[in-house]
Amino acid sequence: LRHRMGEVVYGEGKTAAQCVAIAERLAATGTPVLVTRLDAERSAALRQHFPEGRENRSARTFIANAPAVKGSSSGEPFVAIIAAGTSDLAVAEEAAEVCVASETAFERICDVGVAGLHRLLHKIPEIQQASALVVVAGMEGALPSVVAGLVGRPLFAVPTSVGYGASFGGLAALLAMLNSCAPGVTVANIDNGFSAAYAACNVAHLVREARLEGARRESL
Amino acid sequence: LRHRMGEVVYGEGKTAAQCVAIAERLAATGTPVLVTRLDAERSAALRQHFPEGRENRSARTFIANAPAVKGSSSGEPFVAIIAAGTSDLAVAEEAAEVCVASETAFERICDVGVAGLHRLLHKIPEIQQASALVVVAGMEGALPSVVAGLVGRPLFAVPTSVGYGASFGGLAALLAMLNSCAPGVTVANIDNGFSAAYAACNVAHLVREARLEGARRESL
Amino acid sequence: LRHRMGEVVYGEGKTAAQCVAIAERLAATGTPVLVTRLDAERSAALRQHFPEGRENRSARTFIANAPAVKGSSSGEPFVAIIAAGTSDLAVAEEAAEVCVASETAFERICDVGVAGLHRLLHKIPEIQQASALVVVAGMEGALPSVVAGLVGRPLFAVPTSVGYGASFGGLAALLAMLNSCAPGVTVANIDNGFSAAYAACNVAHLVREARLEGARRESL
Amino acid sequence: LRHRMGEVVYGEGKTAAQCVAIAERLAATGTPVLVTRLDAERSAALRQHFPEGRENRSARTFIANAPAVKGSSSGEPFVAIIAAGTSDLAVAEEAAEVCVASETAFERICDVGVAGLHRLLHKIPEIQQASALVVVAGMEGALPSVVAGLVGRPLFAVPTSVGYGASFGGLAALLAMLNSCAPGVTVANIDNGFSAAYAACNVAHLVREARLEGARRESL
Amino acid sequence: LRHRMGEVVYGEGKTAAQCVAIAERLAATGTPVLVTRLDAERSAALRQHFPEGRENRSARTFIANAPAVKGSSSGEPFVAIIAAGTSDLAVAEEAAEVCVASETAFERICDVGVAGLHRLLHKIPEIQQASALVVVAGMEGALPSVVAGLVGRPLFAVPTSVGYGASFGGLAALLAMLNSCAPGVTVANIDNGFSAAYAACNVAHLVREARLEGARRESL
Amino acid sequence: LRHRMGEVVYGEGKTAAQCVAIAERLAATGTPVLVTRLDAERSAALRQHFPEGRENRSARTFIANAPAVKGSSSGEPFVAIIAAGTSDLAVAEEAAEVCVASETAFERICDVGVAGLHRLLHKIPEIQQASALVVVAGMEGALPSVVAGLVGRPLFAVPTSVGYGASFGGLAALLAMLNSCAPGVTVANIDNGFSAAYAACNVAHLVREARLEGARRESL
Amino acid sequence: LRHRMGEVVYGEGKTAAQCVAIAERLAATGTPVLVTRLDAERSAALRQHFPEGRENRSARTFIANAPAVKGSSSGEPFVAIIAAGTSDLAVAEEAAEVCVASETAFERICDVGVAGLHRLLHKIPEIQQASALVVVAGMEGALPSVVAGLVGRPLFAVPTSVGYGASFGGLAALLAMLNSCAPGVTVANIDNGFSAAYAACNVAHLVREARLEGARRESL
Amino acid sequence: LRHRMGEVVYGEGKTAAQCVAIAERLAATGTPVLVTRLDAERSAALRQHFPEGRENRSARTFIANAPAVKGSSSGEPFVAIIAAGTSDLAVAEEAAEVCVASETAFERICDVGVAGLHRLLHKIPEIQQASALVVVAGMEGALPSVVAGLVGRPLFAVPTSVGYGASFGGLAALLAMLNSCAPGVTVANIDNGFSAAYAACNVAHLVREARLEGARRESL
Ligand SMILES: Nc1ncnc2c1ncn2[C@@H]1O[C@H](COP(=O)(O)O)[C@@H](O)[C@H]1O
Ligand SMILES: Nc1ncnc2c1ncn2[C@@H]1O[C@H](COP(=O)(O)O)[C@@H](O)[C@H]1O
Ligand SMILES: Nc1ncnc2c1ncn2[C@@H]1O[C@H](COP(=O)(O)O)[C@@H](O)[C@H]1O
Ligand SMILES: Nc1ncnc2c1ncn2[C@@H]1O[C@H](COP(=O)(O)O)[C@@H](O)[C@H]1O
Ligand SMILES: [Mg+2]
Ligand SMILES: [Mg+2]
Ligand SMILES: [Mg+2]
Ligand SMILES: [Mg+2]
Ligand SMILES: [Mg+2]
Ligand SMILES: [Mg+2]
Ligand SMILES: [Mg+2]
Ligand SMILES: [Mg+2]
Repeated sequence: LRHRMGEVVYGEGKTAAQCVAIAERLAATGTPVLVTRLDAERSAALRQHFPEGRENRSARTFIANAPAVKGSSSGEPFVAIIAAGTSDLAVAEEAAEVCVASETAFERICDVGVAGLHRLLHKIPEIQQASALVVVAGMEGALPSVVAGLVGRPLFAVPTSVGYGASFGGLAALLAMLNSCAPGVTVANIDNGFSAAYAACNVAHLVREARLEGARRESL
Repeated sequence: LRHRMGEVVYGEGKTAAQCVAIAERLAATGTPVLVTRLDAERSAALRQHFPEGRENRSARTFIANAPAVKGSSSGEPFVAIIAAGTSDLAVAEEAAEVCVASETAFERICDVGVAGLHRLLHKIPEIQQASALVVVAGMEGALPSVVAGLVGRPLFAVPTSVGYGASFGGLAALLAMLNSCAPGVTVANIDNGFSAAYAACNVAHLVREARLEGARRESL
Repeated sequence: LRHRMGEVVYGEGKTAAQCVAIAERLAATGTPVLVTRLDAERSAALRQHFPEGRENRSARTFIANAPAVKGSSSGEPFVAIIAAGTSDLAVAEEAAEVCVASETAFERICDVGVAGLHRLLHKIPEIQQASALVVVAGMEGALPSVVAGLVGRPLFAVPTSVGYGASFGGLAALLAMLNSCAPGVTVANIDNGFSAAYAACNVAHLVREARLEGARRESL
Repeated sequence: LRHRMGEVVYGEGKTAAQCVAIAERLAATGTPVLVTRLDAERSAALRQHFPEGRENRSARTFIANAPAVKGSSSGEPFVAIIAAGTSDLAVAEEAAEVCVASETAFERICDVGVAGLHRLLHKIPEIQQASALVVVAGMEGALPSVVAGLVGRPLFAVPTSVGYGASFGGLAALLAMLNSCAPGVTVANIDNGFSAAYAACNVAHLVREARLEGARRESL
Repeated sequence: LRHRMGEVVYGEGKTAAQCVAIAERLAATGTPVLVTRLDAERSAALRQHFPEGRENRSARTFIANAPAVKGSSSGEPFVAIIAAGTSDLAVAEEAAEVCVASETAFERICDVGVAGLHRLLHKIPEIQQASALVVVAGMEGALPSVVAGLVGRPLFAVPTSVGYGASFGGLAALLAMLNSCAPGVTVANIDNGFSAAYAACNVAHLVREARLEGARRESL
Repeated sequence: LRHRMGEVVYGEGKTAAQCVAIAERLAATGTPVLVTRLDAERSAALRQHFPEGRENRSARTFIANAPAVKGSSSGEPFVAIIAAGTSDLAVAEEAAEVCVASETAFERICDVGVAGLHRLLHKIPEIQQASALVVVAGMEGALPSVVAGLVGRPLFAVPTSVGYGASFGGLAALLAMLNSCAPGVTVANIDNGFSAAYAACNVAHLVREARLEGARRESL
Repeated sequence: LRHRMGEVVYGEGKTAAQCVAIAERLAATGTPVLVTRLDAERSAALRQHFPEGRENRSARTFIANAPAVKGSSSGEPFVAIIAAGTSDLAVAEEAAEVCVASETAFERICDVGVAGLHRLLHKIPEIQQASALVVVAGMEGALPSVVAGLVGRPLFAVPTSVGYGASFGGLAALLAMLNSCAPGVTVANIDNGFSAAYAACNVAHLVREARLEGARRESL
Repeated sequence: LRHRMGEVVYGEGKTAAQCVAIAERLAATGTPVLVTRLDAERSAALRQHFPEGRENRSARTFIANAPAVKGSSSGEPFVAIIAAGTSDLAVAEEAAEVCVASETAFERICDVGVAGLHRLLHKIPEIQQASALVVVAGMEGALPSVVAGLVGRPLFAVPTSVGYGASFGGLAALLAMLNSCAPGVTVANIDNGFSAAYAACNVAHLVREARLEGARRESL
């Protein structure tokens, strides 16, 4: 499983030159290398060095040796990435790139905030097919509770720093998610789409391996 | 309007004797007197002094000269008091007693937490008849956002101290409600069913008066 | 009521192009479209696209298909917007634009901070005519308590981030307002003139409808 | 000045025996000895040992060698102790006992909260005669701002822990007072009537000495 | 999956009679019913009513219709419950009872705090066999980071309120876990062994189902 | 007394043009007008308009109709402004300008932090001559406790935002000063040299008036 | 060094029986066993089991196989334990017992708070003889800064929870100490006399060993 | 010892000219002068003035009259500076420069975060040779606990502001370190490599002196 994920570089606090050098060394074996938290300048440096690489400016990520993207129609266990508002999309995109880098199938379900419930209810059947959920929301952070009440899948909640005033940089959403009255909701750091998606991909991989294992046992 | 509400005494930090003495003085004119935040001992002292009074132990309130209770079937503009869980009921009951003391019609809609959405959706038509809403919730405090997304009425949210750990005595629910992505949600202090209901009754009274005013103008 | 408000777009985190595109789509039916939290560049983009639109730079808002402004002299139920200091005006202006967009009559009562009480006392008779109050204050956030003690109307308090040091970005004013010793004060998020005004307009609309309803019943 | 105050013992965390022993030693010279933060048991121990002493159970204080009480009619510079609600009286009483122990004239002005402004306005002429003010308030802590706007005297504000929910043990009142928009308001710790009164008495003593000094210079 | 878990009742804030009545109703169909957060009195009431039930005083739980306990030797996908210190055991036990109630195999690995690293390193091979991990730690909450660095399984961290001073009731451990430098760590509320274990059991059930699914597909 | 202070304008959030316009209007009667919290641009605008005015860039203030500066040698009751470190000087300077604008004598005693105690001890005799003290300190905010232990004068403490990390923008110093173990220390907002000096000047004025009053009475 | 300290048991959250059992097992080899955070009942249980043991009720500790106490006159490198007020003594005593259990010489210097500076200055020559300092203070936590400015020894500061209101359970003192303007002050958890003394004893042991090492080298 | 350290200037809030002037004055006697918290401009000014000086841009420091660097191979007691991640290096470098300026031998051990335990375990033998440890870590701040569990040396922990979201500018790491379950960990302010290293150098100097003292005694 670990190898599946390839390598990850945390771009914040590294120079463009450092990012390129580290990515180059790690990418030499052909494994995917995901670099996160990139500003425009560092992203451009990576793009220039890895012209085949996959750049996602909204996610602030870059993947060298990027695998092909897989959706739910691939038939593989997939991750559903659910986001409340347009402002939460950057975090949802970071989660999506983790799925890409780890060769995990995924679907995005966006703009389904709790104040417009019908859009969300409409998407529930699709969400119920997923193996694991990443649920991204800012402001009052209510979305994970509502989704977890409707879908019985491991749900990884990501509070975002979207909001102002008493959102205190995402603290309001973080506290809300930690206090979810729906059981089984666990929470990543504010804006940490990376870690929640890593956990969700981990579950999807376990499911894939278990299917293979079940088949292997049966075939004996 | 003000006279409508009768008088209110904040019971916390007053002795049983003080509560009785103040209530007696205020009740002399026949106006309703609501005493809040009563422990068992002070409540008993009031009950003994005002055997006709209305005691609500769950709400921790007592009303001397209590008016009759009015529901939505009274045809008057009414307040809907909506609570998420059984543990939030004490606060909802305090809100209910404010309605009683101010001769405002009201209905309770309870056990409609966001993790069990269908119970809530079932109640929406009833809620839409109300003139104003008091929405009580602890833990992640998500209920006001969901309700406000479905019902276009003035909504007064009350966070409760129900929860543990990172609920920090109701802070998580308070912050969530202040950051509601649904417009028009305003918030009372933690566990302050009194103040939210006071505001909601105020709206209901305004509506009642406006109906009378409309009729009066028309009849001229 | 809902339709009354027209449409609202939260400008923060959207590009100028996105703001224009969304506003254009929503404005097509002729309904008012209020865009909030606009910086100079985005505001200019909207102004260029909707030359007839209403721009309020102090409020950081823009209204496409803006209705005419109505004051208390319109005879309609109106909202009083009360602000403590000159620094709180931006938030008061945002509240005012919500009234405009929702075709609600309103009056501004400004520069009435609690440290200069006589200016405020002078305005009380005017304030008592309103159907609902939006009270905006920063620093110690004392104004809502004083006003609510003098005027028996639904009062929606808005703490502002005006201040420094231990104001902690508006937290001091927020906490003060949540702890108001005057009953019926409810509170919006820091700097959220939008939501408080939305609630106040909601009350004014209810009163207008109730008058019509009263007249209708009488006329039968 | 210092000698004036006599001696002060902080009773919290000391046994009854320790309180008596310390007070006995300090009182031997005949100077007043103020003991603060006493529970019933320790207070009784002091009363038994100093039957002539001055016990104030509401203030939780005891004074051995207690001087006579002086009011504003004494003609001496006096301290006005102003309190918002009945629940703030314990703190106001602690302030009063500091005046007694330091032989400072003082007056109590109570039950003048900001939500009932007229009671306060009525007392302003009396307050304006004082040399220094101690203003005690809990909940939203608005009283010092209003008083300082009306009376140009050194004003020492004391937030109290009266309140619940988002009062956070007096934090809301403390922050409000620190952010007072009225100039010259300074603040003591939550519930610290002692320190605010100590400062106010200090001012009154300076004024008394300055009068004597002025007379002395003139008489030369 | 959902049905697997049986029913859960949150015991806090319910009377003994209410706990028994609710549990009786839910248990009628023979499904396991887990009641959490029970004090001695309520636990005794349940024990008396369900003499066959499973009581765990350290976990503060009771299970009516309790399934048999399954360990890692069952061959089923199992959950590893890892706890740092003896004081964290109550939370670990709550997690264990969730496994029991949901018929999930599990193993306890306790007393493996980070300040005594060798005990932990010794247990790593066993932990690597698990499908999902619940990691419980108080004080500085370092254990999840260390475990996640050594074992590539979905890891659900539970901060506990064990500690004093600047642990602030578990806040220190909570923040530490949210900031884990090991990817894929997600976090439950302070002391919420229930929710973390619910998530972990969810993963174990998914793995079990996937094995069956793999076998089913293969056998076609 | 009030008139003494002249007028004060809070420059923050006002344009240069507004600052000039307001100052011009207030200065017309010849009274001193103090403008605070000025950036370079606004300060220059005032300087250009009032070429005789008093500009203090370190204090970020400007005084139109500035009175002459008076030191302790003037024989008048004076204020001592005491600052711990060089970084606290800006706040101390703001305090000094309040003394200038209100025609109060004052002395600066700087660079006397608690980690270099001997410099402070050396200054104590001078400080003991003052009528009131303004004590400015950042970081751990220890200076007021030490000074108040040595000098029996009304002491107004000002925490500054100097520091980093766990100083949390002056919060550490603020809390330290509020908890001073020396009696009679009261506290202004973080960086609020203005309000502390206003209070201190108020005391000095009272002393001056009391001297005159004493002389007047004597001369009768 | 490690062996020197003997064994330590954290008594909080363990039953009396558990405390005795663990202590008995650890004490079997004759090594000192320090048990901390004991209430009266558990302490009595240990006393009964180890009648020769050393009980310190003020420190809430017990030592089985307690070594003899050594003071500074022993000629060994010693630890100075300095405490501000009588209320901080419990924490100072816990520190003292750590010295006893680890056979480290120590001296207590108490009642030397910063508001009574002369008592402290008097003790400085004695303090300068120590190898390491434990400085205990509550409220504003100023003592470490003052001591560190006067004595160039490793200084371990311990904030205590002594105080009320804005001391927030020791937070004020903790923040003050972390922001000390004197270099080299490091800080233990609130009320954690144990850990600070452990560090100080560690330094004293290093010094002792270095002396032996120096002698050994010289003697070769 | 004090003299050893030379002089220290805190560069923050001083102009380039001030930095140069102060450093020049202090450096006149030939003693090392360490200037900290320098931005590029001020650092360049010092470099130009002291062309022989030692500039460390990553540490943001400059040393005039810089002594030679000494490592562990010098045979002198040395300080080990241990850092978790590349982003913590700036703080570790500041610590290193304190060692240089005070002529203390030191070694850097970097990139040994707790999520990659084997790198750390590999370094333990080297770390055990040190006299004192400075341990620098951001995010969850777990490194000090793990190191202190493995190495019995005085350990000075430095939380860094590296991280995002719920790291709250280093607060998460700070709280974690204060709550370390390993005894004897004490903590410096966030990002304060200076103070922790100052303390560690202090210990190393004591050890060196004790060796000399032991030799001196022996040689008598
Ligand atoms: N966006 C992110 N948020 C949190 N952690 C991350 C992120 N990106 C990478 N990481 C973690 O940072 C580690 C790499 O750090 P580094 O060695 O500094 O590049 C990875 O193993 C991840 O665990
Ligand atoms: N439960 C409550 N929560 C908050 N405020 C209350 C409550 N009950 C009464 N009050 C307020 O307290 C005032 C009466 O306070 P008092 O004069 O102390 O009895 C009333 O006018 C209400 O505004
Ligand atoms: N110990 C616990 N901590 C947090 N949530 C719990 C706990 N026990 C039960 N719950 C949740 O509370 C719900 C039942 O609440 P209630 O209907 O009040 O009994 C369950 O569905 C769980 O999601
Ligand atoms: N980076 C730093 N962090 C914290 N304190 C420092 C730092 N650098 C210097 N200091 C302290 O600041 C004092 C010098 O301050 P100053 O006189 O303003 O230059 C020194 O004695 C140190 O105690
Ligand atoms: Mg949301
Ligand atoms: Mg809820
Ligand atoms: Mg205000
Ligand atoms: Mg008040
Ligand atoms: Mg731990
Ligand atoms: Mg200082
Ligand atoms: Mg102290
Ligand atoms: Mg770390």
